[in-house]
Amino acid sequence: MPSTAIDSSLFGNYFSSEAMREVFSDENRIRKYLDIEAALATVQGRLGIIPSDAAAEIAANCVLDKIDMDKLRMQTERLGSPVLGLVQQLAAACKDGLGEYCHWGATTQDVTDTATILQVREALALVAADLAAISGSLADLALRHRDTPMVGRSYLQHAVPITFGFKIAALLSAIERHRQRLSEISPRVLVGEFAGAVGTLASLPAGGLETQAALMIALGLGQPDIAWHSHRDRIAEVGCFLGLVTGTLAKLATDVKLMMQTEVSEASEPAAPGRGSSSTMPQKRNPVACVYIHACASVVRQHVAALLEAMVSDHERASGTWQIEWISLPDAFLLTSGALSHARSLAAGLEVDAARMRANLDLTHGLIVSEAVMMGLAPHLGRGRAHELVQALCLKAIEQRRPLFDVLAETPEINRHVGDDELRKLCDPARYLGLSGEMVDRVLARLG
Amino acid sequence: MPSTAIDSSLFGNYFSSEAMREVFSDENRIRKYLDIEAALATVQGRLGIIPSDAAAEIAANCVLDKIDMDKLRMQTERLGSPVLGLVQQLAAACKDGLGEYCHWGATTQDVTDTATILQVREALALVAADLAAISGSLADLALRHRDTPMVGRSYLQHAVPITFGFKIAALLSAIERHRQRLSEISPRVLVGEFAGAVGTLASLPAGGLETQAALMIALGLGQPDIAWHSHRDRIAEVGCFLGLVTGTLAKLATDVKLMMQTEVSEASEPAAPGRGSSSTMPQKRNPVACVYIHACASVVRQHVAALLEAMVSDHERASGTWQIEWISLPDAFLLTSGALSHARSLAAGLEVDAARMRANLDLTHGLIVSEAVMMGLAPHLGRGRAHELVQALCLKAIEQRRPLFDVLAETPEINRHVGDDELRKLCDPARYLGLSGEMVDRVLARLG
Amino acid sequence: MPSTAIDSSLFGNYFSSEAMREVFSDENRIRKYLDIEAALATVQGRLGIIPSDAAAEIAANCVLDKIDMDKLRMQTERLGSPVLGLVQQLAAACKDGLGEYCHWGATTQDVTDTATILQVREALALVAADLAAISGSLADLALRHRDTPMVGRSYLQHAVPITFGFKIAALLSAIERHRQRLSEISPRVLVGEFAGAVGTLASLPAGGLETQAALMIALGLGQPDIAWHSHRDRIAEVGCFLGLVTGTLAKLATDVKLMMQTEVSEASEPAAPGRGSSSTMPQKRNPVACVYIHACASVVRQHVAALLEAMVSDHERASGTWQIEWISLPDAFLLTSGALSHARSLAAGLEVDAARMRANLDLTHGLIVSEAVMMGLAPHLGRGRAHELVQALCLKAIEQRRPLFDVLAETPEINRHVGDDELRKLCDPARYLGLSGEMVDRVLARLG
Amino acid sequence: MPSTAIDSSLFGNYFSSEAMREVFSDENRIRKYLDIEAALATVQGRLGIIPSDAAAEIAANCVLDKIDMDKLRMQTERLGSPVLGLVQQLAAACKDGLGEYCHWGATTQDVTDTATILQVREALALVAADLAAISGSLADLALRHRDTPMVGRSYLQHAVPITFGFKIAALLSAIERHRQRLSEISPRVLVGEFAGAVGTLASLPAGGLETQAALMIALGLGQPDIAWHSHRDRIAEVGCFLGLVTGTLAKLATDVKLMMQTEVSEASEPAAPGRGSSSTMPQKRNPVACVYIHACASVVRQHVAALLEAMVSDHERASGTWQIEWISLPDAFLLTSGALSHARSLAAGLEVDAARMRANLDLTHGLIVSEAVMMGLAPHLGRGRAHELVQALCLKAIEQRRPLFDVLAETPEINRHVGDDELRKLCDPARYLGLSGEMVDRVLARLG
Repeated sequence: MPSTAIDSSLFGNYFSSEAMREVFSDENRIRKYLDIEAALATVQGRLGIIPSDAAAEIAANCVLDKIDMDKLRMQTERLGSPVLGLVQQLAAACKDGLGEYCHWGATTQDVTDTATILQVREALALVAADLAAISGSLADLALRHRDTPMVGRSYLQHAVPITFGFKIAALLSAIERHRQRLSEISPRVLVGEFAGAVGTLASLPAGGLETQAALMIALGLGQPDIAWHSHRDRIAEVGCFLGLVTGTLAKLATDVKLMMQTEVSEASEPAAPGRGSSSTMPQKRNPVACVYIHACASVVRQHVAALLEAMVSDHERASGTWQIEWISLPDAFLLTSGALSHARSLAAGLEVDAARMRANLDLTHGLIVSEAVMMGLAPHLGRGRAHELVQALCLKAIEQRRPLFDVLAETPEINRHVGDDELRKLCDPARYLGLSGEMVDRVLARLG
Repeated sequence: MPSTAIDSSLFGNYFSSEAMREVFSDENRIRKYLDIEAALATVQGRLGIIPSDAAAEIAANCVLDKIDMDKLRMQTERLGSPVLGLVQQLAAACKDGLGEYCHWGATTQDVTDTATILQVREALALVAADLAAISGSLADLALRHRDTPMVGRSYLQHAVPITFGFKIAALLSAIERHRQRLSEISPRVLVGEFAGAVGTLASLPAGGLETQAALMIALGLGQPDIAWHSHRDRIAEVGCFLGLVTGTLAKLATDVKLMMQTEVSEASEPAAPGRGSSSTMPQKRNPVACVYIHACASVVRQHVAALLEAMVSDHERASGTWQIEWISLPDAFLLTSGALSHARSLAAGLEVDAARMRANLDLTHGLIVSEAVMMGLAPHLGRGRAHELVQALCLKAIEQRRPLFDVLAETPEINRHVGDDELRKLCDPARYLGLSGEMVDRVLARLG
Repeated sequence: MPSTAIDSSLFGNYFSSEAMREVFSDENRIRKYLDIEAALATVQGRLGIIPSDAAAEIAANCVLDKIDMDKLRMQTERLGSPVLGLVQQLAAACKDGLGEYCHWGATTQDVTDTATILQVREALALVAADLAAISGSLADLALRHRDTPMVGRSYLQHAVPITFGFKIAALLSAIERHRQRLSEISPRVLVGEFAGAVGTLASLPAGGLETQAALMIALGLGQPDIAWHSHRDRIAEVGCFLGLVTGTLAKLATDVKLMMQTEVSEASEPAAPGRGSSSTMPQKRNPVACVYIHACASVVRQHVAALLEAMVSDHERASGTWQIEWISLPDAFLLTSGALSHARSLAAGLEVDAARMRANLDLTHGLIVSEAVMMGLAPHLGRGRAHELVQALCLKAIEQRRPLFDVLAETPEINRHVGDDELRKLCDPARYLGLSGEMVDRVLARLG
Repeated sequence: MPSTAIDSSLFGNYFSSEAMREVFSDENRIRKYLDIEAALATVQGRLGIIPSDAAAEIAANCVLDKIDMDKLRMQTERLGSPVLGLVQQLAAACKDGLGEYCHWGATTQDVTDTATILQVREALALVAADLAAISGSLADLALRHRDTPMVGRSYLQHAVPITFGFKIAALLSAIERHRQRLSEISPRVLVGEFAGAVGTLASLPAGGLETQAALMIALGLGQPDIAWHSHRDRIAEVGCFLGLVTGTLAKLATDVKLMMQTEVSEASEPAAPGRGSSSTMPQKRNPVACVYIHACASVVRQHVAALLEAMVSDHERASGTWQIEWISLPDAFLLTSGALSHARSLAAGLEVDAARMRANLDLTHGLIVSEAVMMGLAPHLGRGRAHELVQALCLKAIEQRRPLFDVLAETPEINRHVGDDELRKLCDPARYLGLSGEMVDRVLARLG
């Protein structure tokens, strides 16, 4: 009986992905604990710290379906952590008292933190795959629409023309920066813990560092210089990364839902039967993906602040900030997965109406090219006079609700220098795209 | 397979209460939808807006176990909302095509928002009950320890003495303010929706307002002046209230965990077998409730910011901010319920070590009463001289690591005026409690 | 040399109002300290706690321009608080050593907190005035446009018609709720402090409560039941209120800037010379007020979370959370004042283009009234058939890019029952406004 | 008349540093604009885009004290941005109409964003210097106290011994990660803008990219692949970095203020006359730096969330999110500078009481070494029996309030195997430090 939107059997897929829910499921968390205990026993057996038959016996019992989950639930309730109960079950399952060597020299937080990092690794791999897919789709869109003219907007007003490829390439560039960030933070973040009660390895003075080194190699994680029980910058950094990624996705969602407005209609989310339509209002094609991306991103960014607060730990193991992570780290990843999966299908299937984009360029009857006209007249009239004159004629066009071209063409000071053909070219928004195409090329060239 | 800490079968009870999870469960949400559809049909039958046999048939079918939840899941996935699918199932279940009159004049958001408010009402009732219980326990503690002297601390330093009852009464006063807030916001917040697609009741121009009025009476909710589809201050206000409540609980948790420190040991969480103890460190008595209260409060306050952002809706029904509420409102309530249930058992069972409190007053060997001594000598020496002299003697006591009394007693300028007995009284922290007791009385008197 | 956007000599007025900056200026803070010290001396003189000539002398010296601000700056730097330095200056200014009775029985936090509350009172008065003015402007707009039809939008899509008055009335209703909230929280929040080092009034056991009571009457504040040095729910509640207010203002800003879009052009910010225009793009009429309202609200809501964290105080006077308030409370008020002053001029001068509103209703060539048509045909065709047929004809109209009326009128199943005149009425968006007008009336009726 | 805590003439230095206030001052912002305009003119002169005498004339006039700041203030108020007014003043100052070539092809946001990045570069340099200084002080402390035993604490309870050097080294390791982060983000973030109205360089199609490249070289910034007017991940990333840094500083502050508690007294902030002392309570030594670090960090993390929201831009230049940065980016840097400068002096002057640290290890009369005793007895008694026995004897010691050693020594099952000398060694906390020293060495070795 789930109660959160993320775990809801009704809404869950709107706010998260199934794959990410699997990563942060109770089962996978326990599986990671078992993987760590097995790896620990194995390396300690190899190092001669525990008997090799104990190592083998423990490793053989580190299997999820040998665990009595109901019992574990009750143990967790009573003991405050599932690790201790799991170790008890594991020890009891080993023959000949060999279970005594289980969890040798480890503390609860060692196992919990290392398991979290293993989950983070799986979760970041999902994020990376989604980012790669989105990058691919955006690259396709940018290339295809490299030269598709449309309105560029500032402050929600028509500004000057751009191409749709340019718009997408700017987004793609941000996605690529996120991928670069991920490659930088991964080695710093994917570092395990094995350090004992307060991090000194007092519980295993002989062979402690060797065990730590070998365990991390076995798990494919980095070895810490020193315990990070109460230094949580790595976890908070992961949160920041998710905040940055979802920020960009929310920007994408904002642009798409604005382009989907009835009055704009330049692009829309991929159609799916029943999706985004209204039974009573057949004209509607509601954004759906955009809506959930927006909401997920809004909550992720608040979890970032929570994860930054989780850094304010006291002493060697904290009295309340660590538990913030238990709530906010999974939630941040889960909501990010929701945003990513919506964005992925959005980027893959975005429907673009190039004709409408072209038509909207003419909505202001040429005012969108006033800058171009001004620059085209400057060599003839001087920059200052060109500016003054064009501005006045624009106002005239607005007042008289006539196309700017007509007003320009009838003005002697202009038609004395510039013929109708040239004037028409100056007034063509599709000829005032600047370096839109070159910018697209620059971004695509980076993809390698 | 839950993935969030709140819904986790292992950790769920640390971060929420079972009762609150029930309120926000998928089942209860659907139950509320059915309650609303039944009430709507009933009042519309009574008002002659739909046939009375249709009303009866619809109401008879508004029963949770008639709903095919798996089918609803798929409908929700496809249609984007469970309301439409539910109405379809409900209509199909009614005989003789009477289901046609189901959901008459209503829109999805009417049902969703009203259901949310019904959940909020249940959830606030749980909060109110917990606050009342906490208030009761704190009143007991304040009364019992009205005159139990202890160290008052500022900036984590010994300042001047207080009583433990005084400390608790200040907290109790805050809890009472929260209860007052709840009584103020409830009538404003517990207001339903019935207004059609964009709030104009165009779908039910005749009888629309009468239906709205009767429906709200039937559900025990207030009638809105106008639709609040995209004015979400009520929901955000509930979030703020939860942020305020958990803020006070976190203050309680902070004080208790500081008092539980090994070096302080003035109070501790109620003992429970295995709870807060460590298998390897038998001297430990870890705070548990305090730790989870702290973490829950930290995340609730971030959800408050998210719910405030959810107010920034566009037009008549928003494109992404509403969905923030779907995530953050349940989470805020659920985490608050976790904090409240920990705080409730904490307040009920707090173990107080009055002897240790008394002993800690002597840790500074009398320096804690320097203010009292100064004030006691002022009539004899003048205020300025008394201040100067006591400050010098305090420094002497610190340097020589001797009790302040001894240093005072050997000073001629003092013992000329004040005998040892009187001096000993001035140096007794338990005699320098100010109006601690009167303050306790004032707070308790308010409880009525 | 200010460095924050709020205090910037260049940008300050974009992000705050001059009146609010005055409230939170260093000068006004010092003025409040002096007012409190004067009131304290006066009531203690009256109560016989200090000599009456001392009271008179102290009160006479509590004047801002007698204070050496440069010296105070250095004292504050050294002592960590301006109160102590101020009291020293004040005491020195009094003749005959009467300054000795200055600040009698008070602690730094008493003066600081009470001064903050006096500032909060002034600041809330400014907020109240702005809300009243906005309410008045909105009431005018709602009344004037009670029956001005326009597109109602959901998910940024055309949904069904509303009136502009209806849109404004929904907003007005939210503003009125904020005014109600303000009246509820004010008596709870406007409560001073006078309680000594840790709140027990040990420094003034005789006459302490009498002084407290008389001081609060003199200052026009409520008397606390018990010291709230480390229970900061009042301050956080003020923050929440500001978060709620700015949330509604940001909703207003969102709607206006969306209506100002080149493609929509239904309303715009009041024109001012140079304001919102672009020298190079004469067609532009940028939103300005909306932009700053949006930004101010976004940051205010984060300060709400900070103020909620400030509640997590330790013991009797906290070691770091109190100082959060010093940053966030002024900032929250200042940014709110920025949002309010922009909103106030926006509401007063909003330019409404009723003709464009009417024209936009026809953008979908009648699809916006499909719900109305369906309901109009239901009595003739049955509800199910009407739904099915209209939906099919809507799709046909979309595909053939023809007005819905034309498609409907040529359909025998329809024109058999419904003549062209009646059909034209059904297709008139201005006739499908539901109870928009009645809702406006309901909201206006509440204003009293 | 400043109103924010940061700009307050009374409190400013508590919440920010003078150097950082200088970076974000109005004057420095204008100076950056001038630097950019000068560099732009110079490179465009060199590239032959504008006349070389114009370039020289413009560059010669790009001097702060030629600007009429009062006039600029009024221009900014009217035009909504200081850039346009500045360019007008600059153009007017140039002789022979050469000012016409000023700001050639640039847009307001180009100059504003590039100036922001230049400020960010200066601000990050200050952060880097503070981090380096803190790192140096911590390295000294870690080395000096490599072997100074003290209590390790978990959940605010005594756990097992550590050394103070170990505690510091864990912190140092986090500081070093922040320095690594800074080196990674700097090249990504320190990238300017020069792209025209919506980023296409339409205003300068010939020579636009060449100008952009040369301008960035001249300013020492990276060249963007594509305009980032509405992709703000770089700015948000800087915010995240500040959130991470201040998180670690707040952890430091937390530990120090806990160690400064009257009951603990293991370390304290550096003494300064009047600083942290109380005139009425001479025993007090209040934390000051810690208090402000805590508060600054709390607000910075909320600005991080605001900066993440600033990413949710619309179209090519956003309508409200950009302005969030104007508020939050300076505030985040300023508050960080406050936290850093407090932390810097704290790390440089921390007073460590090694004797008290040693004494506190004995507070539990040996219970802190129960783990060590258990491990020492295991070879003699078997691990299970040792655990059981030691736990029982610990409880006995607690009940009888006797040292653990005494209870152990009188137990035949123990003294049969282990003599008093060996037992005394097992009970010596200073001998149970694990690999504390080795961990310190590992961290220091990384410093290179």
